[in-house]
Amino acid sequence: MAVARVFKLVKRFEGFPKEDDLKLVEEKLASPKEGEILCNTLYLSVDPYMRVFVDDLPLGSTMIGEVIARVAESKSPDFKKGDLVASFQGWTSAFLTTADKAAKITHLPEGVPESVALGTLGMTGRTAYFGLLDVAGPVKSGETVLVSGAAGAVGTVVGQIAKIKGCRVIGYAGSDQKVEMLKALGYDEAFNYKKVDLSETLGKAAPNGVNIYFDNVGGNFSDVVLMKHMSMFGRVAICGFISQYNNKSDDTSKGEILYGSILAKELRVRGFHEATYAANAEKKKEANEQLAEWVKQGKLKYKETVTEGFENAAKAFVGLFTGVHHGKAVVKV
Amino acid sequence: MAVARVFKLVKRFEGFPKEDDLKLVEEKLASPKEGEILCNTLYLSVDPYMRVFVDDLPLGSTMIGEVIARVAESKSPDFKKGDLVASFQGWTSAFLTTADKAAKITHLPEGVPESVALGTLGMTGRTAYFGLLDVAGPVKSGETVLVSGAAGAVGTVVGQIAKIKGCRVIGYAGSDQKVEMLKALGYDEAFNYKKVDLSETLGKAAPNGVNIYFDNVGGNFSDVVLMKHMSMFGRVAICGFISQYNNKSDDTSKGEILYGSILAKELRVRGFHEATYAANAEKKKEANEQLAEWVKQGKLKYKETVTEGFENAAKAFVGLFTGVHHGKAVVKV
Repeated sequence: MAVARVFKLVKRFEGFPKEDDLKLVEEKLASPKEGEILCNTLYLSVDPYMRVFVDDLPLGSTMIGEVIARVAESKSPDFKKGDLVASFQGWTSAFLTTADKAAKITHLPEGVPESVALGTLGMTGRTAYFGLLDVAGPVKSGETVLVSGAAGAVGTVVGQIAKIKGCRVIGYAGSDQKVEMLKALGYDEAFNYKKVDLSETLGKAAPNGVNIYFDNVGGNFSDVVLMKHMSMFGRVAICGFISQYNNKSDDTSKGEILYGSILAKELRVRGFHEATYAANAEKKKEANEQLAEWVKQGKLKYKETVTEGFENAAKAFVGLFTGVHHGKAVVKV
Repeated sequence: MAVARVFKLVKRFEGFPKEDDLKLVEEKLASPKEGEILCNTLYLSVDPYMRVFVDDLPLGSTMIGEVIARVAESKSPDFKKGDLVASFQGWTSAFLTTADKAAKITHLPEGVPESVALGTLGMTGRTAYFGLLDVAGPVKSGETVLVSGAAGAVGTVVGQIAKIKGCRVIGYAGSDQKVEMLKALGYDEAFNYKKVDLSETLGKAAPNGVNIYFDNVGGNFSDVVLMKHMSMFGRVAICGFISQYNNKSDDTSKGEILYGSILAKELRVRGFHEATYAANAEKKKEANEQLAEWVKQGKLKYKETVTEGFENAAKAFVGLFTGVHHGKAVVKV
């Protein structure tokens, strides 16, 4: 009988999540019945969105998230032992599931580690793809694209796709090291927002305004961008607002001028979730294949921070909000 | 030689505009040269947008706006004496202009007063048409549409078009009399926002959330709607934010939660100007003809408040912000 190590939510997050809000336990797994598969997790994903979703999760639940796993035993005609799968199983080192809850991963190019199916060639890559090309699209060559949280899992991909599409790309991140990484990835301009004046640097980097703002941070950063730096008919894709996830205060911003700015510049502001687009199997396949093709061609580089050891998952999660990771954060089981 | 009475901007508006910020003067007009037309104004339009645009107007300028006029003398092959035209001439009782700056009005149904070409069958009608059907569209039968500033020039038209399209329509306005007017126009639910709790009434009127929010007011009203009452994939057309036009304070709202709400519900928020759509002659014609057809069929009623006397234009303008008008506010010269 297989045993899974599992992280359970045992305390509500108050402000920043803490490692002891989560607890590691062991659970026994039954043998697969007809239609089921038993899988061993290779990598699990830690993502900022979890901070928000967990507020609605009952205490005692398994911590949520996607994993990449290998099928260890299959009683399903759709899978065989050794198949690589992605599944929303939460933070568990092994799991028993039905075939419909796992997606076979077949699009990873030769030599690309399995973990990348959680990042650039997985949900975060598709988030960048759909967010830039559909939500903020159509993207025209020569347009100016601004990415906040640019060194994160999604931001690193957005900037590179925008470059592939012939755009001028500007990114902001939270350390000099991240800024260097962005420049190496092809960002035309990159700034450490902790060290520069946003409005001054952005005004110089985008003198004619920003055509597309891909927003991962929200808050005052986005207020400044929307109120002062968008071009006429600019498009804003709201992907996240990490600056506020741990913030319990409600009233530090300037909504009214925001309405005025959206009107004056005739902006199009849209929030989106990857899942809405990926629910369309055709669109999901298209994104996976195009992203993999760009990786094969060397046009799209994947960046990840791998934390070793399942037991360190909580620490890796907390690190999302203190800015220690570059690119996609994953945990190797 | 013709003489025009003209309102000039002589003082900057501070907060609410005051009548003596504008001054009535007389100006002589030359006779038309080749390609020019001389026109007598029948009606001039007073609109909230002027409050915002005037901030950039040099002192001494003629107050801006659209007028409906009759050609008194024509030296253009495109116009003859007696033609009805719309033109952005500002507040003037007569004017000399070139043929390219006037649009012939030919779509008014029999018996409809010329003033309606400034309202329901003019710019404000097209604002409702484009804003609802293009910006927030496509509109599906059975959707719930919310209109703020519903008793205004644009709002009265939006609600009626939404009803024509088979929607459930909810409106908020600032007096009991306006609420009665909205109900008479076919609004399914209408409330006096000064007397009710917005969130409580809207929660009951739209228990499954608002699919389309047509926003004329902005400010705290819109904060509540966007943060609590939109349905998944809701669309917001930002047409105006009159609650803030006379407000010099910047910081009374809650932008961050707004970003979160736009993301969580995957909202699409767009600002728009009628002029952007009407610049396409085909689209403008389509809107004019469809609106006129609905008026002829009795499906679309025009509501207007006519102030008599050119000399009372400043008073009519001030009234926009004190809520005295119903429907479109025009001044009869």
